[in-house]
Amino acid sequence: MASISLDNPAVQSYLLYSGILGLKVLGMSLLTGRQRYKKKVFANPEDAARGGKVKFDDPDVERVRRAHLNDLENIPVFWVLGALYVTTGPSAALATNLFRAVAAGRILHTIVYAVKPLPQPARAISFGIPFAISIYMGVKVVQFYFSAL
Amino acid sequence: MASISLDNPAVQSYLLYSGILGLKVLGMSLLTGRQRYKKKVFANPEDAARGGKVKFDDPDVERVRRAHLNDLENIPVFWVLGALYVTTGPSAALATNLFRAVAAGRILHTIVYAVKPLPQPARAISFGIPFAISIYMGVKVVQFYFSAL
Amino acid sequence: MASISLDNPAVQSYLLYSGILGLKVLGMSLLTGRQRYKKKVFANPEDAARGGKVKFDDPDVERVRRAHLNDLENIPVFWVLGALYVTTGPSAALATNLFRAVAAGRILHTIVYAVKPLPQPARAISFGIPFAISIYMGVKVVQFYFSAL
Repeated sequence: MASISLDNPAVQSYLLYSGILGLKVLGMSLLTGRQRYKKKVFANPEDAARGGKVKFDDPDVERVRRAHLNDLENIPVFWVLGALYVTTGPSAALATNLFRAVAAGRILHTIVYAVKPLPQPARAISFGIPFAISIYMGVKVVQFYFSAL
Repeated sequence: MASISLDNPAVQSYLLYSGILGLKVLGMSLLTGRQRYKKKVFANPEDAARGGKVKFDDPDVERVRRAHLNDLENIPVFWVLGALYVTTGPSAALATNLFRAVAAGRILHTIVYAVKPLPQPARAISFGIPFAISIYMGVKVVQFYFSAL
Repeated sequence: MASISLDNPAVQSYLLYSGILGLKVLGMSLLTGRQRYKKKVFANPEDAARGGKVKFDDPDVERVRRAHLNDLENIPVFWVLGALYVTTGPSAALATNLFRAVAAGRILHTIVYAVKPLPQPARAISFGIPFAISIYMGVKVVQFYFSAL
């Protein structure tokens, strides 16, 4: 029976970097909350009830929210394509380097987008490398299982 | 070969509560649709073609959409961190209680946010408990696989 | 030990169609970028620095972004419910047809929503079929593991 062992180094590397990215996504909620309390700008009347106002266009809050949404557009896709890619039996060294580059890229993306905004192409590069790696893994997965049909 | 059995009670519990949360997220689309038809407020001209108008700031529709987005920010992260946490071999009783608390918390979150809005801290608590559990599971995963490097 | 083999045709079918949908979600970022560059409309001042303006209500850009968000609301739920559904031991033929219908539906959804907008009910149908299949799979999963408690 073909299966995937938890002893496989590519699997362990996937689990480690996926876990790091999970914590990183959760951190976006803390970053948003920090901006909301600093600017006293909230999305709901019940949140603004003890001081502050309801406002949907504060530039600092919206910037963090765009970075968060960009995570949601990219990190769940990575989780799935990364797991599927591991099932195609890549070399552990290659897989580990790809996962590491995605994790590093997505963390840098948040820093240059929402923590300390930098001019382009800082964000384009930190977005593009994980994006290209996810495309690569997806193509490998589709080729592998399409030919198995 | 280290592997995870579907007979493992922690795994079965993960599968049950993840399935419940999947249905719960899908339910948000129905809640949004209900508000849109009740208020005759749509996001696309083709949807408003048979009565209703295009409007992006209806407070009742936007409240449901914020609850939905909050699910997208938290539930996929739980799915991944919960699955990864199971691979670290937690006690079945602890894992089951954590998964149950996350599922209950996220369902309550939707109720107090979008079904029958309540004053704070109802939403903060129902958000915070699943959030803290996800952080806990993510830290356990990263510790476990980091030390395996 | 109950486990799921990668040789199982339902699993291989899940992996293929999940991979296709992963690439499809990534494609939404390219569609958004194409609209932004065509209309010279950006979300950040640093992106508009070399020509273009910051604008959050361009109808063509926002239409692609709504299609993208609709993917995020539905495709990660499918990834999870589809994987969980496979663990309940469905027939390979049924599972393959369900996964294929979800993938086809979601691709059509993007086409009729964001590539070549069509009147309703084109989008409602292409949304509804994958949505109903995901509900079906979720109910099967919850029934299966609830009775295992």
